[in-house]
Amino acid sequence: MYQSLLLPDLRQMLNENDELGMKEFCEVLFPAVSAEILTELQPAEAWRVLSKSSNLTRLVEIFGYFSLSFQVQLVNVIDREPLSRLIEELAPDDRVDLLERLDPEHVESLLPLIAQAERTDIRKLLSYPEDSAGSIMTSEYASLPKDITVSEAFERLRLQAPDRETIYYIYIIDEQRHLLGFLTMRKLILAKPDQKLSDVMARDVLSVRVDEDQEKVARDVNRYGFIAIPVVDNDNRLVGIVTHDDASDILEEEAEEDQHRLAAVEPLEDSYLSTPVITLAKKRGVWLFFLLGASVLTAWVLKYFDAGNENNWLIMFLPLVLASGGNAGSQSAALVISALARDQLRLKRGSAFNIIYREFFLSAILGGSVSLVSLGAAWFLTGAVEPAIVVSSTVFLVVVMASVSGAALPILVQSFHVDPAYMSTPLIAALVDVAGVIIYFNVAYLVFGYYPV
Amino acid sequence: MYQSLLLPDLRQMLNENDELGMKEFCEVLFPAVSAEILTELQPAEAWRVLSKSSNLTRLVEIFGYFSLSFQVQLVNVIDREPLSRLIEELAPDDRVDLLERLDPEHVESLLPLIAQAERTDIRKLLSYPEDSAGSIMTSEYASLPKDITVSEAFERLRLQAPDRETIYYIYIIDEQRHLLGFLTMRKLILAKPDQKLSDVMARDVLSVRVDEDQEKVARDVNRYGFIAIPVVDNDNRLVGIVTHDDASDILEEEAEEDQHRLAAVEPLEDSYLSTPVITLAKKRGVWLFFLLGASVLTAWVLKYFDAGNENNWLIMFLPLVLASGGNAGSQSAALVISALARDQLRLKRGSAFNIIYREFFLSAILGGSVSLVSLGAAWFLTGAVEPAIVVSSTVFLVVVMASVSGAALPILVQSFHVDPAYMSTPLIAALVDVAGVIIYFNVAYLVFGYYPV
Repeated sequence: MYQSLLLPDLRQMLNENDELGMKEFCEVLFPAVSAEILTELQPAEAWRVLSKSSNLTRLVEIFGYFSLSFQVQLVNVIDREPLSRLIEELAPDDRVDLLERLDPEHVESLLPLIAQAERTDIRKLLSYPEDSAGSIMTSEYASLPKDITVSEAFERLRLQAPDRETIYYIYIIDEQRHLLGFLTMRKLILAKPDQKLSDVMARDVLSVRVDEDQEKVARDVNRYGFIAIPVVDNDNRLVGIVTHDDASDILEEEAEEDQHRLAAVEPLEDSYLSTPVITLAKKRGVWLFFLLGASVLTAWVLKYFDAGNENNWLIMFLPLVLASGGNAGSQSAALVISALARDQLRLKRGSAFNIIYREFFLSAILGGSVSLVSLGAAWFLTGAVEPAIVVSSTVFLVVVMASVSGAALPILVQSFHVDPAYMSTPLIAALVDVAGVIIYFNVAYLVFGYYPV
Repeated sequence: MYQSLLLPDLRQMLNENDELGMKEFCEVLFPAVSAEILTELQPAEAWRVLSKSSNLTRLVEIFGYFSLSFQVQLVNVIDREPLSRLIEELAPDDRVDLLERLDPEHVESLLPLIAQAERTDIRKLLSYPEDSAGSIMTSEYASLPKDITVSEAFERLRLQAPDRETIYYIYIIDEQRHLLGFLTMRKLILAKPDQKLSDVMARDVLSVRVDEDQEKVARDVNRYGFIAIPVVDNDNRLVGIVTHDDASDILEEEAEEDQHRLAAVEPLEDSYLSTPVITLAKKRGVWLFFLLGASVLTAWVLKYFDAGNENNWLIMFLPLVLASGGNAGSQSAALVISALARDQLRLKRGSAFNIIYREFFLSAILGGSVSLVSLGAAWFLTGAVEPAIVVSSTVFLVVVMASVSGAALPILVQSFHVDPAYMSTPLIAALVDVAGVIIYFNVAYLVFGYYPV
C-alpha cells in the first residue's frame, strides 16, 4: 500500500536531487518497504538514493531485502570502495550467495579491500558444495561455554547480540567447538541466575551435517518449527546454523523448481520476469525438442497402422501438432502461474503486456525451431514436401498461439479473482486441442485447396 | 534414522505391556521423534503408549507433531475426560484446527469439560472465516504496557514465558489492547535496565488485519523473515499473532494445492495416502469429466472437417482417447510427486505397492465412469454402436494404464536418485500418446477384425 504512494515522491526527490529527502527515505521507513520501492528504479538510481545515507547498518538491511538478481545489478554500478564496505557488513550467508553470482574476476578485485576476518569466512563458505547445508548456513550464531552461570551468560549474550543472526537459540560448545548442548533464550530467562549452563542445557541436540542436502535441512527446520538448526562437521564441531527464514526461502525455491519441472521447464535461476528471453528459450526448448521426439514416435506408430492409406499423413501428425501446442502452452502457464503465486508480478505496472509481448517473441523463436525439426520429420516419414509444409507451419502457429494464451489466461482469470492455478496443464492442452485442429485443417486447405483427409 | 531402530522396540513394549518403557518413550525422546514413530502405529495403540505418561506438557508437544488427520483419528479413540485435558493444553491455533475437523456434536460434548477461559477462546477463534489471518493466529503472545522499565519487563516476561508461543517478539499495548509498539528480545537485552519501554520500542509496527487472506499473511512473515507478525482488528487492537512455523505450513499447503490444481486435481484436505480412494475419485473425476467435455468438442470439430469420410470416426476420437489418458496420468503423477517432495511417503514401508494398488483401483472407477460418458458421446456423434464400443473400451484401458504408470514412474526414477518432478505432465502425456495409439488400434482390430482406417 505504501509503495504506490511513495514511489512518485522518491522520483521527485531524484529529479530535484533532494539529498536530505533521500537520506530520510533510507533511514526512516521500514527497510523492507524502502527495498520494495527502490526495486522499481533503475539500479544506478537506486544506488544514488542509497548512497545518500551514511548509516551502513541500515543500507545493509535494505540491501538484504533486494532479490538476488537486483543485488547483482546494483553491485555492478557501485564503486569498489563503498562496495567492499557493504559486502563486509552483509550476513555471511547472503554475502556468499551474492559473490557466487558475480563474475569471479570482479570478486577477486574486491577481496583485497575486504577485512581479513571476513575474507577468510568468505573463502570458507564459498568452498562448500552448492545445495549443501554448508552453502546456506551462516557462521554468525550465538555460542557459550558450559561452565558459566546464567547471569554470566546474559552478560556475554549482550556482547554477541548486535552481530548474530539470532540469539534466541544458544549453542553450548567446548574449546574445540564440539557441540555439547543447546539452550533457548526462553529457558535461560526461566532459569535461576546462579545456575550453571551445563545444568540447564538440553544435551540431546538435533543437528545436521555440513554436507547434507539443503532441501532436507530446510524441511527439518520447518517440520520441527525451529528458529534455527545447528550445522556440524564430521567431528560434531559446530560450523554454522541455518535459520528459519533461509529455510523458508529454500523451500519456496524448491517448490518453484518442482512446479517448473512438472511443466517440462528446466528450473530458472531468477524470477520469470528477470530471466532473459534467450535463457527462457533454452530452458523450455530442451524439453520441447525431447517431447517432439516422442511425438515423432507416435507419428511413426500411426504410420504403421495406416500403412495402406496414402492420405492419412494428416492424421499421422495430428497428435504431434496438438502435443507441440499443449506442451508450449503448459510451459507458459506454469511460469506465469508460479510467478503470480509468488507475487513477483504484482508490483510491476504494465507487466501483463510485458509478459504477453515476451511470450510472443519467445514462442516465435521456439515455434520456429520446433517447426523446422517437424518439417524434416514429416518430410522423411511421408516422402512428400507439401505435407511437411502443412505440418511445420501448423506447429509454428500452434506453438505461438498456445504460448501466448497459456500466459494470458492465468492473468485474465486472476483479474476476476479466480485462482490462476485453475488454468491447469490439462485444461490448456484441451483448449489447444480444439483450436489446434481448426488451424491444422485450415492450413492444409490453404496448401492443397481442399481438406486432404 | 532413529525411527527404524526404535519402532520394533516400541512394538515389543506394547506386546509386553511394559508401562515404564512406554512412559520413557514419551518423556525421554525428542517429542518430534516420538511423534514420528507413533504415527506408524494404529491410533488406539499410539494412545496406549501416550497414556502411560503423566507429563501432560510432553504429551501436548508430541501431539502437536502429528498430522492433522492422525490427530483426528487419535481423538476418536481417547476418552472424553483425558481428551478435554489434552485439548485445554493445546496451543489455541492448533486446537481450533483440530476442532474444526471434528464432528460438531463431538465438539459440543467436549466443551462443557473444558475450562471457561479456553472455552471462550475456542468459540472466538472458531468464529473467524476459514483462510483468514484470524483462523491461523494464536492468542498466546507476549505483551507489555509501555510505561514500565526494561528490568520490570524481564520480570513480567518470566511469568509469561511458559505459555506463550514466542517471547522473542513483544508487543506493547494500552489498556484497550491497542497496538502501540514492538520490541524484540534482542533489543530488550541490549537496552539499559532502567529505560522505559516507550523509549526503546519501535512505533512503526508492521501488522495484518484479522480478516486478511492467510496466504498473504504467511507470505509477509516469510518475506520479512519475521518470527511472528501481529494480527489486529479494525480498531488496531491486538487479537493474536501468526508465527513463522505456522506461516511456513500455510505456504507449503498452498504450494501443494497449486501443484494439484495445475494437474487438474481439486486440492486435497489430507495427505495423498491418508485420503480415501473415493474422495480422490471425486477430486479427480470432476476435472476428468470437464476435460472430457472439451475433448468431445474437439471430436465434433474433427467430424465437421471429416464430414465426407465415413470411416474417419477412428480419427475423430483419437485426440479424446489420448487426452483422457494424458489427463489421468498427469493427475496421478502430480499427486505422487508432491507427496514424495514432502517426504510423506518415505517412512511408510511397502508404500510403493500400496500406491500402485490404490491407483489401479481408483483408475478403474475413474476409467469406468469416463468410459461410459465417452460411449454415449461416440454413439451420438457416429450414430453407430461398434465405434462407440471401441472408443469407450479404449478410454477405460488408457485411463487405467496412464494412472498406474503416472504413479509408478516418479517412484521408479526417485529410486535411481533422479528428481521425480522430471516425470512432468507433458512427458507423461507423450508416453501415453505412444501407448494409447497402440491400444486404440488394437481394440478396433478386435471389434472389427481389421484396422478400420
